[in-house]
This record gives sequence, C-alpha cells and structure tokens, in this order.
Amino acid sequence: MVKHSQATTIRDVARQARVSAATVSRYLNRSAPVAAETGQRIQQAMRELGYSPRLAARALATHKTYTVGVISNALNYAFFGPLLRGMDEVLREQEYRLLMATCIAGQDRGNLPFGPHNTDGVVVFANTVDDEQLIEWHAVGFPCVLLYRLPPGDLSFPCVNVENHAAVRQLTEHLIEAHGRRRIAFIHAPDYHQDDLQREAGYREALRRYGLPYDAALVLRGDYRREQASRAIEAFLARVLSDCDAVVAGDDDLALTVLGALYRAGVNVPEQVAVVGFDDQHFAASLVPPLTTVRAPTEAVGRVAARQVLHLIRGEAVERETLLPTDLVLRRSCGCAGQSLRKGLSESYHPQMLVGR
Amino acid sequence: MVKHSQATTIRDVARQARVSAATVSRYLNRSAPVAAETGQRIQQAMRELGYSPRLAARALATHKTYTVGVISNALNYAFFGPLLRGMDEVLREQEYRLLMATCIAGQDRGNLPFGPHNTDGVVVFANTVDDEQLIEWHAVGFPCVLLYRLPPGDLSFPCVNVENHAAVRQLTEHLIEAHGRRRIAFIHAPDYHQDDLQREAGYREALRRYGLPYDAALVLRGDYRREQASRAIEAFLARVLSDCDAVVAGDDDLALTVLGALYRAGVNVPEQVAVVGFDDQHFAASLVPPLTTVRAPTEAVGRVAARQVLHLIRGEAVERETLLPTDLVLRRSCGCAGQSLRKGLSESYHPQMLVGR
Repeated sequence: MVKHSQATTIRDVARQARVSAATVSRYLNRSAPVAAETGQRIQQAMRELGYSPRLAARALATHKTYTVGVISNALNYAFFGPLLRGMDEVLREQEYRLLMATCIAGQDRGNLPFGPHNTDGVVVFANTVDDEQLIEWHAVGFPCVLLYRLPPGDLSFPCVNVENHAAVRQLTEHLIEAHGRRRIAFIHAPDYHQDDLQREAGYREALRRYGLPYDAALVLRGDYRREQASRAIEAFLARVLSDCDAVVAGDDDLALTVLGALYRAGVNVPEQVAVVGFDDQHFAASLVPPLTTVRAPTEAVGRVAARQVLHLIRGEAVERETLLPTDLVLRRSCGCAGQSLRKGLSESYHPQMLVGR
Repeated sequence: MVKHSQATTIRDVARQARVSAATVSRYLNRSAPVAAETGQRIQQAMRELGYSPRLAARALATHKTYTVGVISNALNYAFFGPLLRGMDEVLREQEYRLLMATCIAGQDRGNLPFGPHNTDGVVVFANTVDDEQLIEWHAVGFPCVLLYRLPPGDLSFPCVNVENHAAVRQLTEHLIEAHGRRRIAFIHAPDYHQDDLQREAGYREALRRYGLPYDAALVLRGDYRREQASRAIEAFLARVLSDCDAVVAGDDDLALTVLGALYRAGVNVPEQVAVVGFDDQHFAASLVPPLTTVRAPTEAVGRVAARQVLHLIRGEAVERETLLPTDLVLRRSCGCAGQSLRKGLSESYHPQMLVGR
C-alpha cells in the first residue's frame, strides 16, 4: 500500500473533514460531484494533515511492473481454474504477468499480497479485501476490478458479474412448472457473497410468483465451512427430507455434496428429490444423475476482468458494470428426460441404454 | 534472476572451464565432490570472468521477502486446488505468503515470475522451469523444491512425489486378476511429466508380470492439448474399442472424458469396458459409474513442499526425495461391486437401490 507522508490515509482526511472516506475518494477522483463546501473541508483537512494524493498518483504512474495481481479467498475449488485461466491468457497476450494470492478479509488487513508497490493493478474476488482498502485504492487511482461484487459506497470500480438472480429464478420456476415441485430447499454457499444472496433472491422471487410460501426451515444458511459442508448438508437434509421435493444448491460443488448425501440416504434423484446446481463445472454432466445447472461463463468473467484492468492501467474507458449472461442446462437431476447424447463411435458394439440415465 | 557482474552466469563459467553447468553448481554448493583439477579450472574461469557467487549468495541472505512463489503450468484443473491449498496453509502458519504464477517451459525462458529478487524460495511444479534455470538457482543457493519431478543432473534440490509406478502397477494387476481384463489401453496425460511416464511404466510392468503383450496401438500418447483431450480420446477409442476391455486413464480428468466418450458411444462401463483413473479428485466418487482410482495425497504434497522450502530458507536439513504413499480406491468403474455406502439419514424414506450403482 502506498503510504502518504508517514501514515496519513484518506481515512484520516475523512475524519478531519467529517465526511466519509468514500466521499474523499469521489472528490479526489472527480468520479462524482461533491458539494463545494464539502470539497473545501476536504482540501483544508489535507493541508492540515500534509496529505498529498498527487505524490501517490505520481508514484503509481512512474513504476510499471507489467504485473497484475488477483486476490481470491481460497483455491480449493475447481471453480477458480477457468477464472484464473481466462485472466492469465488475456494478460499473457498483452505481455503482462498474472500473480495470484489468497487473502482472508479481516484477517489479512494491512498485510495484503498486492498493491501499488508490486503490481500495476489488481482483480479482487468477491469480499476478499476490506471496503476501507478499496476506498484507499480508489482515492489514489490504483487500477482495481471487482469480481462477483459491487463496489463499496458506489465508487467507480469496474465490476464483472454473471446473471445470478434471473438464472436461479428461472431454474426454480422450472422445478415448479415442469416438475411440479412445491417444497424446494435452498442451500447457501458458506462464504455468503453478493452473488449467493442474488441467487437466494431469485429463488424467493420464483416462490413468490407461484404463490408458494417462503419457509426459512427449508433454507440452509452458510454458517459452516466448505470443509464441513458434507456434515452440515447431511444434518440439514435429515431435518427437511420428509418435507422436501427439490434442492437448489448454491453451486455445483454443493450439489455434488447433496447428491452424495441423498445417495447414502437411499433417496432417489430426481424421482423423490430433484437437485440443481450452479456453474456447470466440468464434472456436472458426469454426475449421478447428470446435473441440471446454470452454465456460468466463468472463463469469460476472467477474460473480461483482465481486459478491464488493462483498460484502467492504460487510462482508457471501462464499463462500470458488466453482467455476463448464463444458460440453463437441463439434465436428468431436475427430472428432465435428459437429451439423447449418444452418437456412433464404433460399429462393433450394439449400443445399450446405460443404467441410471 | 540475480545477475552477477553484468550478465555472467554459471553457464559462462562452465563453458570457460569446459565442464557442465551442473558440475559448477555442485562445486559451488559443495553438494558433491568434484575432482581437484576440475575445481581449479572452475576457480580460474570464475576469476577470468569476474564471477562471484558470494555476492549473489549475500544478496539472497540479506533481503527477506517472507514470500514463496509457486510456479505451475496451468490452473485449469481441479488438481491444483488441493496442492495450492496445502502450501498456502503451511506458509500462512509460518507468516509467509504464497504467490502463484503460471510458466510455460521454453516460452517463458528469461522471464520467470519468481526468483531471488522477489521471493525467498520457490516451489516448481513438474517441468515448468528449464533445467538451465534450476542449475543457476542451485549454484547461487536459491531455495527451490521440485514437485513431481527429479532434479536435473542429480542436483541436491528436494523433490516431492507420490507413488506412481507401484500404484498403477497394482491398479492394472487388479484389472487383470480380479476382472479378467486382457486388452488394456493406457491414456497418457498430454503434458508428459515424469510422473506420467512412471505411471506408464507401472502399467507395462503389470502386463509383463502377467505375460500380456505390450501393444503400442493401445497406448494414446499425449500429442494433444488438454482442451482437445475429448476429441483425441474419442478418436483413439473409436480405433481401439472393438479390441479393448479396459482403459487406464492417466488421471481422473482424463477418466471423466473417457466415461463421457463411452457413454455417448453406448458402451457399458464396466461391463464392456472397465475404466480407472488417478488422483481421486473430489468428483470421482460421484461419476457414472463411481470411479475406481488411486487416491493421491495431493494436499499433503503441497504441505510437505511448503515445509521443505521453509527448511531450505532457514538453512535446515531437508529430505532429498519424499515419496508419499497412495491408496487404491475400488469403486464400480473397474467392475467391483461398490461398497455399501448407505446409512440412515431419515426414517421417512424407504431406501431403494439407486439405478446405476
């Protein structure tokens, strides 16, 4: 992090000027109008504290590392593969290097892996960096792109996201309309990002549209860690199973866990309980039964994010919010018949229906 | 990379002294005896070229970054998740930071993401860094741990690997002994690392022990890219399917692709063709049918590698080669009955056998 005249930050300026740090940031970056009187208070506070955003900006402009950092919270999920790959490919084409590191919001405060001292810009996954840090970066004009979240205080960081709300609404409506499901559980991802909340909102809207009651007992909130997902989900299903005919899982990794728990409980999917996921990870089509899910363009999210951060680094115009479209992929786990995917490979076998499809 | 007196490297010293760079490295590091006459030639070459390994070593010793870099070739495979997570956890405990970057051997020569200038040590995945670079790092004493490969020229880098040869031998023997398979195909990973060659050697040894002929037509060599694996595997299977009763896939990702291709061809697994993989990735138990595979302790490999690089950084003793044990996990795809995994979750359902298991 760039430090101005010892340890003075825009938070100090904001306190002195009795405004929010976001307001200081907007004023310094001219990203939104600020009342004249407020601007004068900010100017005065900066003089009193000896804070010079220009010094920080100049330092940023002069040392180029041709390196972009990406900060994520974990690397244990196949989900990150396509995301990082999309970023890495675009940056390599432009002779930039992508460095990756994990960060835990709160815990890693003041000890971030990337900043203006070692990168030309960063891509931040969900809530892995504190709002205060983002406001600080915004104030000094450090190029930053947010993934799967909106910026704090409406700052002008570009954000890249996928259609979460509409996709889960459609998926839930499909369970109701096409398969007559009425008691639909929703399993939150344990990390509770904005996209997860958008997915729950889509689920709730579908219920509302069909006049089905929202029942908090059918919603598993993410007060478990990913490592304990299996146990949390088993306990949840044991509670709700006698009263539930479908499960909307927050993502494909959770759907995989749900399918395992239902299999061990001897519950037939989709006949007794339908299961759907989100992402369409590479294994989704090969699960038992093949998983109905939402195809999220995760690699494209990475490519867009990389292009946006390069635009910022070069001082070019960027889209403030990019929302990439998703597709429903209907397979067997929701109750759909499953498409006929077979095609001739060899004439020497007489194709037979595989059991379980 | 640390540069000595302009651009003189140990390769220049080696050329001048008419020895290999590995010999110069062994001499400088005292990691193996070098003939007295050879040592004198090296000393003279260093004097003539003004090369001082001590300056490089001192630079290494004084600036501490508390950062370890890991270099991998790709991030698109779920395989890397547990590996990176194991490393990240151990390093965080010791208040070190893990940075990750991709590197393509050959292509990224002279432009490596990590070196003594920005990290205290590196972990190198398979063949992602050229041998010449490793020899250079060895000469200046830069802490380096190799994953899934042995060091070039027998240099004293610690290596961490899993039991590849014995595991695939046992898996292949299981297909022969327990399931009477005789025409067993082997599908190489496309990137051809040492571990992949060890796996093929295990497959060949099993054939030899049972007096089965090795048939090159049944082996798919990795002259395809991961992205094209599906097409390459379909074409291969179309050729060999009428003459093949089992497939040993180089890893679980490839096994997933094989299962998909066989399903589309209407081939029954395991009745017509048995399929086995390697790694026991998180999706393996949920495939159709559940995948028989080798459980590789990938997260433990990451933890061991992180501990080794910390030992090197602190000048402590290290194991030169760590070989972590693997386990066979017998599921339905090889022809085994599959274990009874069911247990009570809710009394309200009458457990039924799921189709396809």
